[in-house]
Amino acid sequence: MENKRYRIGVDLGGTTIKVGIVDANDRIVAKISDETRTERPWQDIAKNIVDLVFSLLKTLNIQLEDCEKMGIGSPGMIDHIKGVVVFSNNFGWDYVPLIQELNRFIDLPTKIANDADCATLGETVAGAGKGLKYVVMLTLGTGVGGGVVANSVLQQGSAAGGMELGHTLLMLDGEECTCGRRGCVEAYASATAIIKQARRAAKTDPSSLLYELCSNDLNNLNGAIIFKAAAKNDPTAERVVGDYIRYLGETIINFINIWRPEVVLLGGGISNAGDDLLIPLNKYVAPRCYAGERGFVPKIDVATLRNDAGIIGAASL
Amino acid sequence: MENKRYRIGVDLGGTTIKVGIVDANDRIVAKISDETRTERPWQDIAKNIVDLVFSLLKTLNIQLEDCEKMGIGSPGMIDHIKGVVVFSNNFGWDYVPLIQELNRFIDLPTKIANDADCATLGETVAGAGKGLKYVVMLTLGTGVGGGVVANSVLQQGSAAGGMELGHTLLMLDGEECTCGRRGCVEAYASATAIIKQARRAAKTDPSSLLYELCSNDLNNLNGAIIFKAAAKNDPTAERVVGDYIRYLGETIINFINIWRPEVVLLGGGISNAGDDLLIPLNKYVAPRCYAGERGFVPKIDVATLRNDAGIIGAASL
Repeated sequence: MENKRYRIGVDLGGTTIKVGIVDANDRIVAKISDETRTERPWQDIAKNIVDLVFSLLKTLNIQLEDCEKMGIGSPGMIDHIKGVVVFSNNFGWDYVPLIQELNRFIDLPTKIANDADCATLGETVAGAGKGLKYVVMLTLGTGVGGGVVANSVLQQGSAAGGMELGHTLLMLDGEECTCGRRGCVEAYASATAIIKQARRAAKTDPSSLLYELCSNDLNNLNGAIIFKAAAKNDPTAERVVGDYIRYLGETIINFINIWRPEVVLLGGGISNAGDDLLIPLNKYVAPRCYAGERGFVPKIDVATLRNDAGIIGAASL
Repeated sequence: MENKRYRIGVDLGGTTIKVGIVDANDRIVAKISDETRTERPWQDIAKNIVDLVFSLLKTLNIQLEDCEKMGIGSPGMIDHIKGVVVFSNNFGWDYVPLIQELNRFIDLPTKIANDADCATLGETVAGAGKGLKYVVMLTLGTGVGGGVVANSVLQQGSAAGGMELGHTLLMLDGEECTCGRRGCVEAYASATAIIKQARRAAKTDPSSLLYELCSNDLNNLNGAIIFKAAAKNDPTAERVVGDYIRYLGETIINFINIWRPEVVLLGGGISNAGDDLLIPLNKYVAPRCYAGERGFVPKIDVATLRNDAGIIGAASL
């Protein structure tokens, strides 16, 4: 296998296409990126990926024959078995056979997975979950993405639409979710959700520090501002963050009661709050898991690879 | 392997110990049972299991050497890695090293798992999920037990207390659960829960058929009576059953969104309602899963092996 010591990882995002070459030590030896420009026909985006791959190989003076395999992480609903993007809202894609198209140009074993699944695998292989066999990861961004590695195997379900951890319930008949259901985790624990909660709360408290920190325009609110106001003891922001800790904490307890992972990792914008999030969250979760002190309760931590997680994870599919 | 063509399965219940010999075709060739009498020291119960095993082998004229392995299904919180019953409320057991004790008398590779996990594995190997790779099963009894087979592997989590599907949320801050949390699935979808819901509802409707069917004593209420009253168009019972379908349906949607199993199986007392449960439940779930008609939606069905599922599952660990 000496001549197959590299793998290609592609992180296909709504804004950027990132391609990396990953070595046998799960390190990215080089990466390259381009704008996705989702308005293009999907075939053009596929060709762009192919061009980026060959450009990167050329730079490194690596042949395709030196590569063992290729993997793609993509947003949307992925059929990992058929290699198809079944549906992607961001891209306007409907049943796009991406693997088949890429393989017209790149003749390597190729797999595709949801971007949250790739990030989880990347963190497990080379990041905050390195060396662990059971990892649950939640990405707290526009939505809530989820991924699970169980007994060292990335879990993807039997068909497209599996491992949608953000689309499990927190509250029957609760807040409307983008998926059409009410009360999903995503409607409470995403960055979008905490911003919505903070806007509502600020409207009931004109003296809140939130206004000052967002230049008196609630459209400027973001996760960082909300956590900052709470750290400065603004009562309204503290209440919003307190509720958010409870929503996210209860969500994490669900997944601990299912997988008892060795660690729970958080990624996405909200995870930038660091200890302001982690300390109260770990404190909330520990005593509330099934079987209390008799059961193992994993630590909740932040993911470490950031943008590289998707590339490394894709290359490890 | 010709001389290792049998396996021993033990289903250790709160009332009965059942032991079966399972053949290479996953059929029970013979079984035997005894009362558990949980008030005994646990060592006596272990010895009882051993005696039942040897008695059964003798009847069949099979030697221990003809057996490949042994498995135990037990209620409570099981450390499947250490082979220990960490805690069992029914038995009053606290960290009982059951495998170690059994192996003093029976020198076979031996595994232990939660009873709901064993039932799920049994149904997957030889019952309603036979031939499938992804099966989610819920047992709707006193509590809600859950088991998952993913890519043909029984999922148990990294530590004791995993796969407690009944202890995931349906409703934040909802009904009190036996586990100390509020709003768990178990507090809404167990047989205990529907009986509680029906009692409450009956108290607001003195003319409900429920009274007649339980001889005017609400302590006699059970799942069968509630479904019977609903089938006879008693409005109060219909409302209780309707709510229950929604609670159980939303629960099942959560697990479909996680595993996209090929089938969802129901066991336990409530599953005896058959089509009165399955028809409205399938109708409720299908349009509400993540990605709607784009996603694969499995059928919800009843388990078929009943009491044998635990023995076959244990023998298949």
